[in-house]
Amino acid sequence: MLHLQSESTDRWLAQVDQNLADVLIDHAHCERKAASTAMNLMNSYTDNRALCVEMTRIIQEELEHYHLVLDVLDQRGIPFRRLASGHYGRELNALVRPSEPERAIDRLLVASLIEARSCERFRRLAEHVRDRDPGLADFYAGLFESEARHHTTYVKLAEQYAERDVVVARLDQLSRDEADIIAKGSELARMHS
Amino acid sequence: MLHLQSESTDRWLAQVDQNLADVLIDHAHCERKAASTAMNLMNSYTDNRALCVEMTRIIQEELEHYHLVLDVLDQRGIPFRRLASGHYGRELNALVRPSEPERAIDRLLVASLIEARSCERFRRLAEHVRDRDPGLADFYAGLFESEARHHTTYVKLAEQYAERDVVVARLDQLSRDEADIIAKGSELARMHS
Ligand SMILES: [Fe+2]
Ligand SMILES: [Fe+2]
Ligand SMILES: [Fe+2]
Ligand SMILES: [Fe+2]
Repeated sequence: MLHLQSESTDRWLAQVDQNLADVLIDHAHCERKAASTAMNLMNSYTDNRALCVEMTRIIQEELEHYHLVLDVLDQRGIPFRRLASGHYGRELNALVRPSEPERAIDRLLVASLIEARSCERFRRLAEHVRDRDPGLADFYAGLFESEARHHTTYVKLAEQYAERDVVVARLDQLSRDEADIIAKGSELARMHS
Repeated sequence: MLHLQSESTDRWLAQVDQNLADVLIDHAHCERKAASTAMNLMNSYTDNRALCVEMTRIIQEELEHYHLVLDVLDQRGIPFRRLASGHYGRELNALVRPSEPERAIDRLLVASLIEARSCERFRRLAEHVRDRDPGLADFYAGLFESEARHHTTYVKLAEQYAERDVVVARLDQLSRDEADIIAKGSELARMHS
């Protein structure tokens, strides 16, 4: 359903265990960036009414998530701060082809894959911390459903810009690339490291 | 209260009367751009918690306004479309000084003046069309209060980046520039022409 070609590794879970504060701070930034991605798509494809309606919904939900994460940081006494970004988003966005309509398709599919990976990781984290930290497990469990929905929304919107089989083939290629990018890992403990 | 140094002219009202469809379409784009400006500020000053909280509120309200304008377009059978931007926003944004903290102050004050001008024009339009088109008058009257509030929010946030008298002096300068820019008018019938 999520079109991902890999599962998150125990290496990453161990990294989260050792750097939970950084991963939570990064998570807040990810939600803000997700809202920003939707706003940028709305600005670029401003005459696509269906897209603008969906982007409005996503912006509102991501900003809600952003504030939920800030609340978790507050509850845990973790000060919010700037954080250097990992390579994940940058490398994925570099795969976007420059001319339209390929650019629209790729921007939407890259967004769909970031949503999918977030969803997969929230679910994984919810299970991983369930016994030890049920509050945090509930928090992650409360997020993955909407990220799955965002994934589906982005894929459907991409189908406005090309035939379904063209979109499916491109999504397959990009999801392979996504799996390669996430497999590299990062020294920085991040939601997508 | 709005720190504006001029009132909108009868020339502009006549332009609106002759091109109401374009002005309404432009208005929808203005609301989207207002949301986008708030998102950009949030992305730039991500560690300023108070700013991020206020920007979240403004983004949500501007997106609501955007959909209200789209509803008005639908009710009137006016198809939404892309529209070339007037010079107003571009010329105002060119006044932003490049280095921090001046850049933050100027971005916030320019945003505050655009909100103020929108507020002044919504109020003016509400009066202007009251007898002829009470539905449209109510629509404009329903918007100016929140734009006045956005103006105040942006000015207050600027005061986090400099002493109050420095901000007041800069706002005075920028509002003179704003009055000059809007006085030029534009052949394009726009919310800020
Ligand atoms: Fe989210
Ligand atoms: Fe999402
Ligand atoms: Fe507005
Ligand atoms: Fe506003």
